[in-house]
Amino acid sequence: MVYPDTFTGFQVSGPAPAEKLDFTKQEYKPKPFEDYDVDIKIEACGICGSDLHTISGGWGKQHFPLCVGHEIIGTAIRVGPKVTLIKEGSRVGVGAQSYSCLDCRQCKNDNETYCVHQRDTYGALWESTGIVSQGGYSSHVRAHEHWVFPIPDALTSVQAAPMLCAGLTAYSPLVRNGAGKGKKVGIVGMGGIGHFGVLFSVALGAETWVISRSHAKEADAMKMGATGFLATQDKEWNEAHKMTFDLIINTANSLEGFDLGAYLSLLDVHGRFISVGLPEGSGAEVRAQDLLGNGCLIGASHLGSRREVWGESVVL
Amino acid sequence: MVYPDTFTGFQVSGPAPAEKLDFTKQEYKPKPFEDYDVDIKIEACGICGSDLHTISGGWGKQHFPLCVGHEIIGTAIRVGPKVTLIKEGSRVGVGAQSYSCLDCRQCKNDNETYCVHQRDTYGALWESTGIVSQGGYSSHVRAHEHWVFPIPDALTSVQAAPMLCAGLTAYSPLVRNGAGKGKKVGIVGMGGIGHFGVLFSVALGAETWVISRSHAKEADAMKMGATGFLATQDKEWNEAHKMTFDLIINTANSLEGFDLGAYLSLLDVHGRFISVGLPEGSGAEVRAQDLLGNGCLIGASHLGSRREVWGESVVL
Repeated sequence: MVYPDTFTGFQVSGPAPAEKLDFTKQEYKPKPFEDYDVDIKIEACGICGSDLHTISGGWGKQHFPLCVGHEIIGTAIRVGPKVTLIKEGSRVGVGAQSYSCLDCRQCKNDNETYCVHQRDTYGALWESTGIVSQGGYSSHVRAHEHWVFPIPDALTSVQAAPMLCAGLTAYSPLVRNGAGKGKKVGIVGMGGIGHFGVLFSVALGAETWVISRSHAKEADAMKMGATGFLATQDKEWNEAHKMTFDLIINTANSLEGFDLGAYLSLLDVHGRFISVGLPEGSGAEVRAQDLLGNGCLIGASHLGSRREVWGESVVL
Repeated sequence: MVYPDTFTGFQVSGPAPAEKLDFTKQEYKPKPFEDYDVDIKIEACGICGSDLHTISGGWGKQHFPLCVGHEIIGTAIRVGPKVTLIKEGSRVGVGAQSYSCLDCRQCKNDNETYCVHQRDTYGALWESTGIVSQGGYSSHVRAHEHWVFPIPDALTSVQAAPMLCAGLTAYSPLVRNGAGKGKKVGIVGMGGIGHFGVLFSVALGAETWVISRSHAKEADAMKMGATGFLATQDKEWNEAHKMTFDLIINTANSLEGFDLGAYLSLLDVHGRFISVGLPEGSGAEVRAQDLLGNGCLIGASHLGSRREVWGESVVL
């Protein structure tokens, strides 16, 4: 069988450490095509840290076999009869989420990433059929139109792909927490999400500082428009900046050896430290005294809304 | 010697568990009287959990001997030549803080409780003289006028005293985090701070729920105007309220056995969990997954500003 009956993708059969992973090309049945669905023939797919956390088993039990990948660009080759947001033939992208009910309070308030009925692009069980959603290291992907985004011509597919997860994940907490002119923003970690954090924070007009373990990425950060760079390996790295940051976006992938108090001391009164990563293993210890000196807030952010990708509904 | 050369108060000589504390009546010299200072002859002083955390040594090293107490009501018997906020002879109150520089960015933005030069009513060292500030279980207290508040006639001294610390500590995070009509507010713990949290949240028009270990305080909560009561000892106590609270004020005195995730799951998207207590010992473990389901925020709040006590400067 081939499309539209089956999709073809690179799956792993079970959790394993990265060096032992065994990807094999497999055919599998997608969920049934519904009225609001869009089928996309895949052209490019970014590699996200989530992919590794998922197939390593670090995020806990998953449905296997599994094809990961959720920074997908391709062509909309079939649209359901009720689809209005996407035109057949257009270049589109799909990120980490592919479904939300669109009917609950969260969905109606641009918080559809927090919909309790939300389904991820890969690894989500469609209970009625027993089918598990499969990701973008594959021939095709099927997603609800709300989660399919037209891609502007100015961006190549390879540039656009990582924006679908990493880019949106960085952008949403910046705009939701007031990054812009007159604000001082820190980006912790300059990897997949972090480098978008720098680019977007600078573009929004905020004074943007990168906070990293070493100075290895300093030149890159400055090239991206950062105002400055703090390396936590330096003695008293945070001293000169205490109580000066309005917002810190934490993209760090690991909490090991993470001295949360040292980061929080950078925040101005009621400043915010928003994590967008989901590290494996245990959490960080938060001590009341680390929060009391500036009345700061610690939070997290999960992806971003369609409105944050596209403003009002747009058909390219 | 007597006032104004010395004040008389009940001091402890060093840290000890509550049952072994030895209060003795002592005379001590107050800090030098300065232009903006007010001397208060004390009539009443509330007992705050901070007093016990301090003299037990649970909050770490302190300056002893020490007289605690920072919910003080009395009469302003002497005002400095530059004092404009307080009239000699008026009934006034002093809370947990007695000094801030009034010149830094925090002070100029109604965040004077976060001034790095802030000094507590008791236990703070005045470096130039080596004198340690002493609290309200005493004859007199000396404080900067900014931290002295006129008390309205409608309140008895005994009613007003605990508002100076517990009351303000509960009120400030409620108003700073939007408690009011149409909002659902939870108050964790109904002790000294928590019962004010209930009263003020109800008065601000918020739907107010008390969250407590057992049902022991349920009748009291309802009498204070609470909409409902959740006892965490009940099975699935949080199930019916998940993602419905806008704000939770945590006044719990201990983090032992505290399942933070269960509380955070009560919050609506981007809802806030604000702690006002400063428990002894280690902090709570915060796991990214406990924050990601609703993008909630954890924070802390320290006392409240003069403006939150009195609106614009007021002379009674």
